[in-house]
Amino acid sequence: MRRYLDVDPWKIVESGFHPERQRASESIFSIGNGRFGQRANHEEAYTGDTLRGSYVGGVYYPDKTKVGWWKNGYPEYFAKVLNAPDWTTIRLCANGEELDLATHAPLHFRRELDMLRGLLTRTFEVSVGGMHLSVKAQRFCSMADVETAFLRYSVDVLDGSGTLTLEPVMDGDVTNEDANWDERFWEVNAASGDATGGHLTVTTRKTGFQVSHAMRATAWFDSRSLEGSALPMKHGHAVRFECAVEAGSRCVVDKTISLLRGMDHSKESILEKAEQKVEEAVALGWSAALQDHMMAWERIWERSDVTITGDDAAQQAIRFNIFHLNQTFTGDDPRLNIGPKGFTGEKYGGASYWDTEAYCLPFYLGTHPQGVARQLLVYRRNHLDRAIENAAKLGFDGGAALYPMVTMNGEECHNEWEITFEEIHRNGAMVYAIHNYIRYTGDEAYMAEGGWEVILGVARFWAQRVNWSEAKSAWVILGVTGPNEYENNVNNNWYTNYLAAWCLQQACDALEWMKAHAPVALSAASAHWQFDEAKERPHWEAVSAGMYYPELEGTRVFLQQDGFMDKAQEMAADLPDTERPINQHWSWDRILRSVFIKQADTLQGLYFFEDAFDTATHRENFEFYEPRTVHESSLSPCVHVVLAAKLGLETKAVEMYLRTARLDLDDYNNEAYQGLHITSMAGTWMSVIEGFGGFRVRDGKPHFNAMLPKAWGSYSFQLQFRGRQLKVSVDAEGTRVQLQEGEPLEVVLDGKAVRLS
Amino acid sequence: MRRYLDVDPWKIVESGFHPERQRASESIFSIGNGRFGQRANHEEAYTGDTLRGSYVGGVYYPDKTKVGWWKNGYPEYFAKVLNAPDWTTIRLCANGEELDLATHAPLHFRRELDMLRGLLTRTFEVSVGGMHLSVKAQRFCSMADVETAFLRYSVDVLDGSGTLTLEPVMDGDVTNEDANWDERFWEVNAASGDATGGHLTVTTRKTGFQVSHAMRATAWFDSRSLEGSALPMKHGHAVRFECAVEAGSRCVVDKTISLLRGMDHSKESILEKAEQKVEEAVALGWSAALQDHMMAWERIWERSDVTITGDDAAQQAIRFNIFHLNQTFTGDDPRLNIGPKGFTGEKYGGASYWDTEAYCLPFYLGTHPQGVARQLLVYRRNHLDRAIENAAKLGFDGGAALYPMVTMNGEECHNEWEITFEEIHRNGAMVYAIHNYIRYTGDEAYMAEGGWEVILGVARFWAQRVNWSEAKSAWVILGVTGPNEYENNVNNNWYTNYLAAWCLQQACDALEWMKAHAPVALSAASAHWQFDEAKERPHWEAVSAGMYYPELEGTRVFLQQDGFMDKAQEMAADLPDTERPINQHWSWDRILRSVFIKQADTLQGLYFFEDAFDTATHRENFEFYEPRTVHESSLSPCVHVVLAAKLGLETKAVEMYLRTARLDLDDYNNEAYQGLHITSMAGTWMSVIEGFGGFRVRDGKPHFNAMLPKAWGSYSFQLQFRGRQLKVSVDAEGTRVQLQEGEPLEVVLDGKAVRLS
Repeated sequence: MRRYLDVDPWKIVESGFHPERQRASESIFSIGNGRFGQRANHEEAYTGDTLRGSYVGGVYYPDKTKVGWWKNGYPEYFAKVLNAPDWTTIRLCANGEELDLATHAPLHFRRELDMLRGLLTRTFEVSVGGMHLSVKAQRFCSMADVETAFLRYSVDVLDGSGTLTLEPVMDGDVTNEDANWDERFWEVNAASGDATGGHLTVTTRKTGFQVSHAMRATAWFDSRSLEGSALPMKHGHAVRFECAVEAGSRCVVDKTISLLRGMDHSKESILEKAEQKVEEAVALGWSAALQDHMMAWERIWERSDVTITGDDAAQQAIRFNIFHLNQTFTGDDPRLNIGPKGFTGEKYGGASYWDTEAYCLPFYLGTHPQGVARQLLVYRRNHLDRAIENAAKLGFDGGAALYPMVTMNGEECHNEWEITFEEIHRNGAMVYAIHNYIRYTGDEAYMAEGGWEVILGVARFWAQRVNWSEAKSAWVILGVTGPNEYENNVNNNWYTNYLAAWCLQQACDALEWMKAHAPVALSAASAHWQFDEAKERPHWEAVSAGMYYPELEGTRVFLQQDGFMDKAQEMAADLPDTERPINQHWSWDRILRSVFIKQADTLQGLYFFEDAFDTATHRENFEFYEPRTVHESSLSPCVHVVLAAKLGLETKAVEMYLRTARLDLDDYNNEAYQGLHITSMAGTWMSVIEGFGGFRVRDGKPHFNAMLPKAWGSYSFQLQFRGRQLKVSVDAEGTRVQLQEGEPLEVVLDGKAVRLS
Repeated sequence: MRRYLDVDPWKIVESGFHPERQRASESIFSIGNGRFGQRANHEEAYTGDTLRGSYVGGVYYPDKTKVGWWKNGYPEYFAKVLNAPDWTTIRLCANGEELDLATHAPLHFRRELDMLRGLLTRTFEVSVGGMHLSVKAQRFCSMADVETAFLRYSVDVLDGSGTLTLEPVMDGDVTNEDANWDERFWEVNAASGDATGGHLTVTTRKTGFQVSHAMRATAWFDSRSLEGSALPMKHGHAVRFECAVEAGSRCVVDKTISLLRGMDHSKESILEKAEQKVEEAVALGWSAALQDHMMAWERIWERSDVTITGDDAAQQAIRFNIFHLNQTFTGDDPRLNIGPKGFTGEKYGGASYWDTEAYCLPFYLGTHPQGVARQLLVYRRNHLDRAIENAAKLGFDGGAALYPMVTMNGEECHNEWEITFEEIHRNGAMVYAIHNYIRYTGDEAYMAEGGWEVILGVARFWAQRVNWSEAKSAWVILGVTGPNEYENNVNNNWYTNYLAAWCLQQACDALEWMKAHAPVALSAASAHWQFDEAKERPHWEAVSAGMYYPELEGTRVFLQQDGFMDKAQEMAADLPDTERPINQHWSWDRILRSVFIKQADTLQGLYFFEDAFDTATHRENFEFYEPRTVHESSLSPCVHVVLAAKLGLETKAVEMYLRTARLDLDDYNNEAYQGLHITSMAGTWMSVIEGFGGFRVRDGKPHFNAMLPKAWGSYSFQLQFRGRQLKVSVDAEGTRVQLQEGEPLEVVLDGKAVRLS
């Protein structure tokens, strides 16, 4: 843990210049609007350690797979998240000397991310070219108009005089750090401009994703408008503003950007539309645009804020998580999803992991209109054909679907055999998400509008993936990797077996629902997918009923997998600090054969299927697995918060909460430089709402059973539920639930039904 | 299986031109002399599909590791077998048109490898540049002077006239197909020459291995000596011979090559020595050099030939295997070993796998002076420090040694976690080889001269690699890959567990021997390796005695690993032909979870430790595993020959023999284009001598218990044994053993002791 940022309820603040933390800060101070996003790179030239990063949702490059030894079934490519053209740069020269904070050490450097307003501000003083300057740079990616971004760069001359130049730049000459073969991913199609701005259209190689930028630059010198001059570039365009300054002068540049995707506009019109859009944005102006943007954020916070009093670090952290989730995915585009790093880094590539279904869905259900969560389900429904192709590549047939470990367009693009081919539990998460969505929203109609088809494809996969063990007289699932990736190629991972059996039962239940409520849709789907109930369903039922589950004899403990008790039973608390995290100190084989757990998938199963098990079972399993868990997955601690809170283990719950909530802010695993752990941020939200707040949906009603951590004075959260907005407040006097919007509703508070109106 | 080569007892013959099989033929017709070797690339230009390959023993390049996802413990590089400078090329032009068999289709094309003489001959007729030519190209890598090679290229003009040019070339501008990052591996240090020849000195990048070539070219035109002219090249040198020809003319070029390694000569003298060497070779001349070379091969065949009458395909195959083994490793250099492809291809890299100890040692024991097999042991003794470093990288300490999966210099350079970190049974093969060597030769002194130290390092590894299972009340070995690589990361692989326990027992036995026979060496070794008997030995004994072995209840079958009986128990015979080999048709996960076995490691264990188990145990295990084995490892069938022969299963033994013996000749797995399966060739030899011949060494005596396959009239083989040479002949009348050389000896023939003199 390394805390170098100030603690503040609404702001992330870096006071002082930390070049050694520059990459981490670039991640933490990232801004975005669900459509595109930007790391907090300095506007000026910077020759220090930096990862330039500008990302556009839905745009990727199929980078030829790089492996040492090919295994049958590997995808041909990995979908890389692309560093897109640079629209943030504003070069500054004083008397011909270019400002570079790596060589011109700044004074009073301060970086502030205002999460309430979605505004990034950076201020510093610096001596360059014989002048002493005070610089203030502000920017935002508009949440009100997601095709625009605004920068204001203001320079006060405190001392010295001479010529000051400011050059707003748009540059298509960009590369990825994460490139398997050091290839360039973009072609520049058009780049031109004049003294007021320009445009830049680029297209990804192979995939042909087009992105069009337009820029307008305006400047004032001591409140008088300043004329620029055009600076043509091969791969972009810049404008130069030059003025003779003296102490007391002020220069301000407004850089207005439009960023349009070929996915949203025709090839013929995109350039023109980008120009139109930037003209409208200039006409609107910085102040009005910022006002619109702030109002959009205000609406977001109204429906998703969580307050915590008495613990500013906890307060800041939960807002930081909520802020970035909202920047990453707004739910207005069914082609987008929640990438593991959002718009904050290249690492891991792809746009969606099972994290979306398992960890992110509850956040979007609880804080957004119902359509947003539904969009996430539709995304997978739209990829069903690809999932069937993925399964076919591994030898499955008859419409069996295997959803990918990571993807951009539904095609698998992961390439470690133990994950790609074996971490198949992900398939169950697709069905769990449908179940979770319908349970939460009551939108049963979704079953007929995509749900059933996905469930059918997944059920067909499990039905083929099991085999009958004569030795065990039961169905088994061999050769899998569970969510605990510190075990590979194991037999009968309890979580996977349970989830598979549950999916097959869900398929039977869903089929009954379809027969009763959507016979026409069922009949159409049966024809399309060649579904034969008489042939398929009896096997589903047999497998579901006859699945094998490893258990620890004489206890209620479910064993993570066959043979788990053959391991030396060591405890994480006994590991020396010098060996943690073990994934940075131990060889892979040692990790695999050790008892230590990256994330406890048995507990994940108990979390998913809570009501199927009694509290004693929860307790025994938690007490067995928690001490063996090293939480080296960002997705691990949140589930432990929920279970610990349920079991009344407050100390453990708070410890785990801080670990998940401040994972990136305090950079627990020294990984923030790569980008933020976006999907685990939803787990943080879950740990407050479902953990401390004890929120569940049962029988169509919200249930609350809250705990108040000692260190907190109180906390509150907003919840969207079936057209209502609820505000839940917890303090020493208990829990209050207010209906802020919508029809009357019955909730269950500490076990008692209460009618809200 | 695709048989396109003629069957002949002493020759490999390709009649007719098979451009689609060119790469396979280049492998099959490779020549070498243990020091260097050469694929059968055409001398002339060839723009068709070809893999140029010239390899020098002991020379490699550490190619930066290429993996998709890094795992802790991976080596930084993979040691690549290098394509070295080209010394075979002789360009031919007729009236300015260059001969290229890819475009000038040859007539009467014939390629012949004379295995008795070690001579490669290629003849064809071709029309080019208005002439009709008859070409004969011959070459050999001298076995009599392993720093020399000779080519004779003879052209008869059958029709047409004009200018014929022949250009012998030496070219350092070469690349590897197997290069992770498309880098060049060689630097050319010096290249020059004149009208009679030239020299070329190259050095590998990073590793600095120097190789110096010198070339002399002489030519005759219609029996008159022809003057050449120098053709300087940037990365080499060529000589041009030009003559005006007419129908009936004959041009002959002799190209004489010396090839010296920096490993054998000082940097300062190598160039001069290469020149001296080539001058000596030229002075000796083609005919005398060929005579010396043939005599060297004659001596090899005298001590290693196997004859089979009645089945020419079987006869040709065994000689093909013996021929290539002798070309690959002669045992005169302790820095060399038996690379998986020898000098026939780049694939797999590295110089040694556990194949050497498990499969090749018996061949060299049986066919070479004792020192050659000893050299193979010394090679590993010399790598002991590196083996300890390998183990340390994986977290082992206290002098534990882990021999590498593949290496050039002792350092591990494999990089698939399931192999690199987990296929640790290889470590036991090092100890087995020492045991096998001493059993065969009686050279117990080796224990004190390196054996004990290797055994100690390996025992220390196993002592740390086990863990105590409370659940099983036994020592277990978790997370391994056995020789059957169609299972990864399994628990308690029977072969590995048995071998580990046996190694620990061997360590105790060896320690006793050292105490009794070499106390001074023991004491020195104990001090050097900080060996503490009181602390270490009790644990060895406990583990060895308390090891867990998976077994099939109610039978004598040892289970390949924990959980094996959970698999669907299918039989290889029921696999459709269209799905075999499964490694070319199934995804990797499907292979892993299937019952099918690449090579049956339980049977490998029974083969190694035959006398520890009764025949019923052998039979039950063979009957259990053979039907589940798909033999997709080249090392698989030979062990099945030995076991089937022992059990009297003649049909199975013959089927398996043909599969191992003609694996490359008939290209069963369509892999010959990559190079030959050199190490499995030793398995072929083993399958005749130990399988059909029933040869064993027990109590210091050779035992024979032969079977004669119905299709064979008779067979015979030579055996080197403790200073004697035996000839064993088997025909319908029985088995005869003749002492051809050496002191009188008692052998056991069909169970009866017989004294030979």
